Amino acid sequence: MTMYTLGIDYGSNAVRVLLADVQSGEVIATAAVDYQRADKGVYTDSNDANVARQDAQDYLNSLVKACDKLKSDKSLESFDWKSIKGIGVDATGSTPIPVTASLEPLSNLEDFQNNLNAKSWMWKDHTSEDEALKITRLAKEIRPEFMKTCGGKYSSEWFWAKIWHCANTDQEVFDAAFTWVEFSDYIPAVLTGVDKAADVKRNACAAGHKALYNNKWGGFPDKEFVSQLDSRLGKIADSLPEKALAVNEIAGYLSDEWADKLGLPAGIAIAVGALDAHVGAIGSGVNNNTLVKIIGTSTCDIIVGNDSSAVIEGVSGIAEDSVIPGFLGIEAGQSAVGDIFKWYVERLLVKDDGAHMEFTEKSQQQKPGQSGLLALDWNNGNRDVLSDPSLRGLILGQSLHTKDYEVYRALIEATAYGAKRIVDQLESSGVIIDRIICCGGIPQKNKLFMQIYADVLNRPVDVAESNETVALGAAMIGALAACKNEGEEVLLTDLQKRFCKVSSVSYQPIAENVASYSELYKLYLQLHDAFGTTNGSGNLYNVMKQLIQIKNNI
Amino acid sequence: MTMYTLGIDYGSNAVRVLLADVQSGEVIATAAVDYQRADKGVYTDSNDANVARQDAQDYLNSLVKACDKLKSDKSLESFDWKSIKGIGVDATGSTPIPVTASLEPLSNLEDFQNNLNAKSWMWKDHTSEDEALKITRLAKEIRPEFMKTCGGKYSSEWFWAKIWHCANTDQEVFDAAFTWVEFSDYIPAVLTGVDKAADVKRNACAAGHKALYNNKWGGFPDKEFVSQLDSRLGKIADSLPEKALAVNEIAGYLSDEWADKLGLPAGIAIAVGALDAHVGAIGSGVNNNTLVKIIGTSTCDIIVGNDSSAVIEGVSGIAEDSVIPGFLGIEAGQSAVGDIFKWYVERLLVKDDGAHMEFTEKSQQQKPGQSGLLALDWNNGNRDVLSDPSLRGLILGQSLHTKDYEVYRALIEATAYGAKRIVDQLESSGVIIDRIICCGGIPQKNKLFMQIYADVLNRPVDVAESNETVALGAAMIGALAACKNEGEEVLLTDLQKRFCKVSSVSYQPIAENVASYSELYKLYLQLHDAFGTTNGSGNLYNVMKQLIQIKNNI
Repeated sequence: MTMYTLGIDYGSNAVRVLLADVQSGEVIATAAVDYQRADKGVYTDSNDANVARQDAQDYLNSLVKACDKLKSDKSLESFDWKSIKGIGVDATGSTPIPVTASLEPLSNLEDFQNNLNAKSWMWKDHTSEDEALKITRLAKEIRPEFMKTCGGKYSSEWFWAKIWHCANTDQEVFDAAFTWVEFSDYIPAVLTGVDKAADVKRNACAAGHKALYNNKWGGFPDKEFVSQLDSRLGKIADSLPEKALAVNEIAGYLSDEWADKLGLPAGIAIAVGALDAHVGAIGSGVNNNTLVKIIGTSTCDIIVGNDSSAVIEGVSGIAEDSVIPGFLGIEAGQSAVGDIFKWYVERLLVKDDGAHMEFTEKSQQQKPGQSGLLALDWNNGNRDVLSDPSLRGLILGQSLHTKDYEVYRALIEATAYGAKRIVDQLESSGVIIDRIICCGGIPQKNKLFMQIYADVLNRPVDVAESNETVALGAAMIGALAACKNEGEEVLLTDLQKRFCKVSSVSYQPIAENVASYSELYKLYLQLHDAFGTTNGSGNLYNVMKQLIQIKNNI
Repeated sequence: MTMYTLGIDYGSNAVRVLLADVQSGEVIATAAVDYQRADKGVYTDSNDANVARQDAQDYLNSLVKACDKLKSDKSLESFDWKSIKGIGVDATGSTPIPVTASLEPLSNLEDFQNNLNAKSWMWKDHTSEDEALKITRLAKEIRPEFMKTCGGKYSSEWFWAKIWHCANTDQEVFDAAFTWVEFSDYIPAVLTGVDKAADVKRNACAAGHKALYNNKWGGFPDKEFVSQLDSRLGKIADSLPEKALAVNEIAGYLSDEWADKLGLPAGIAIAVGALDAHVGAIGSGVNNNTLVKIIGTSTCDIIVGNDSSAVIEGVSGIAEDSVIPGFLGIEAGQSAVGDIFKWYVERLLVKDDGAHMEFTEKSQQQKPGQSGLLALDWNNGNRDVLSDPSLRGLILGQSLHTKDYEVYRALIEATAYGAKRIVDQLESSGVIIDRIICCGGIPQKNKLFMQIYADVLNRPVDVAESNETVALGAAMIGALAACKNEGEEVLLTDLQKRFCKVSSVSYQPIAENVASYSELYKLYLQLHDAFGTTNGSGNLYNVMKQLIQIKNNI
């Protein structure tokens, strides 16, 4: 019997469904739908640039539309929908949703329908910086082990900081919520007909360091710690299960109600959810010594290790079972990459998105250092290795002749330097990186971007063939659930052999560029340390002069 | 008998003529014509952003057109052109022109017509940095007094650096030139029929510190010094007269040839030339304790003093008789102001110049610090107090939400901080500034700009009524020549009472803004010192964090 799996991938602005053959790993069809509400699903606050919220109902409505779209695919006219035996779901995160005891998102209640605090707190919401700082401080004092799994700093993007910020700024919403559920747990719970928030299965991937879950200390953080942060948070600690589950567990089976809404047979096995980046890494072939870089609006860098006692300073997340069950998942990332280009082209220059390619083509003619520009990739703060949301972008070196495309290239270069800084951090902590595979959209679309990364990183970088590796990874965990349900034990690493293809396009570093970028990277590091640390060399007198020198030497 | 005077003002991109009544100081009519060749007269080199050249013939052709335009002014139909008794000329500088012994610009010769090095080396040409550094070094060693009049550093924008750079990079042009003549001396020489380069009168204003002229050491620098720089420069030292002249001297009388070309009577007295900024200061009412800021593409800050032994560190020029004869002229400035806005709007954003007003209106709604942005005004280097052309622009603090008009305001603010840094330098050197009068174009056009300057400087700033104060100043020195020729001794300070009107618009600092800008200025200074000096505090860790704090406190 041929089995099929359906991956459901919830990104920042759209949901994508992907149908694949479990045995061959071949993708049969995909369909994507943008979120319908606000700005492609994202609610912002003109008074506070840190706010980014979404609506849980929007997620569900968009999924129905995406399945409709898939089902209307002409190539699937004779497809037997009953042959779908597994569903895998991924979503962005940490994106916690305040819900009632009956798993109703508060945003669905009339009282709260216009209240942004009652919505999903999207991963890139940065309102909770104060709370993150306080969590870091208390943990360092009384639970130092907590901080060893998250690069020494709790992030304002994560679960506890966001919930606490809500308690501090909108007590009414906080009080009305029985608990908060991660987006990536909410969807499998809804699809499997869970109607009690207390019964929601929590995935190891989102729980991992983001909600301070670790088996070493018996799961989620103890109530004593949480209550010492704020006694009101005790009820959240009480609402969490003892164990978080890996993606090789089955969350449940597609309910009659949702089978009907999606036009699929009821009873399909649904895997425990996961974060988008993590399943993207799976779909791209992440492994021991293979770093996967998912490069989109932001990036997520993922590698797995088997030394579960590893401590890696300044890297935002280390969690057991969070990527490949049985391995330690190591996660780092940059808070904005594509988002920086989008800001520059679409917000600052107010151009349409065709300008991305125009600038890329023009700046392709230039040599490293030729523009005399240097930038920091911190428009949305720095996630790793500084873990500091209170940082901002910087562009320097502009003359009266600096052109629009030169700044564009400088911004690409800035993100490449940021990427190198993370690779350096991992390697200096003992992680061995033999190979780098990139995926996520930009790598497939922009050759200049990839060449700059190969030159800056001074090593070959590969591109995953699929530009839907996240949805592919979701389909792979759906396949795991399908096999498990049929009594067939398969490992994710086996499935990778079937599903993951790496493009033959491998970018090789060009010696001349490597030499220039090695000089420029030193200046980047100087700015990085001067603006981002208290122990930077500080005196930046040489920076602009050396840029001019480098430019003149071309 | 009613006497009239004609001011001829050669700016960076256009020539303007202004007709005024000597007795009343009333302006009768003006006419302006953009330069015709290259980009509004400016030749650039796509391989070297430092190059800015012009064509001497373009200056003359444009003057003919401007006079034609003035003469076709309907309101002057019955004007008696014979009543013009004086002509004053100003031009940008240091803008030296290589000429033959018969005062023919090399750019007119067939051999050199496509050679940028044979053209006028415009004030903002920054190719001669190495030579400027070497001049500073040698002067400090063997003629330390030279450096006391130019803020301790010779500039790449000035006479000797440019000529020497030509010798070093285009020996053929250097050899073909008998001497080099300042733009502001070339025009009066041509109009008065001078046909030997050796006979060209040199004005005190351009000679001042820019060509290292000072009566203390007997005029232009000695041949020994110049030859020690480079023996080839000896011929230039030999070509210069003993004395440079102030604007109250007569250069000569309008020749028959040029009377014919301009449609004016021959024999009109023509004053010794001067630099545009200096006559602009005269036209705006510069005086003891009154600082005039001429704010256009760049700025020039001018004040006069009577302590001729004054030493002011880090200020680009101090020269006897250079502004008001008998007084010490003190000159500082910013290498780019309007040019930075123009770069941002027209080159980076590729918008038409209507966007200047659009951005101004939008950013008027914002409070100081609200954008979280901070910039350095160094896109064209820093003229004062760092005197360093090897500096470049910087913008920091941008998030993913930063808007086009917010950057625009940050750039205005950056120029205001640069202006304050100069005022601080003057005051700390003992110069007393009771009043600041602004002119030059931007001050009359942009109220937000002026309010930001009042707030940052924390003192009232006045605006000169005329937006043609430079051409007015040129007319005033024309009036001096006219009076002198008629045997009537008049002082420039007397003429100022007739000619100079200051607008009733005086911008007052707003206390709330002053408080914010005082915080922001401290951060500006930190960047200024960190990037521009070797002794800056250097550690910039706090900069971005404080910007966010200031923004959050609004």
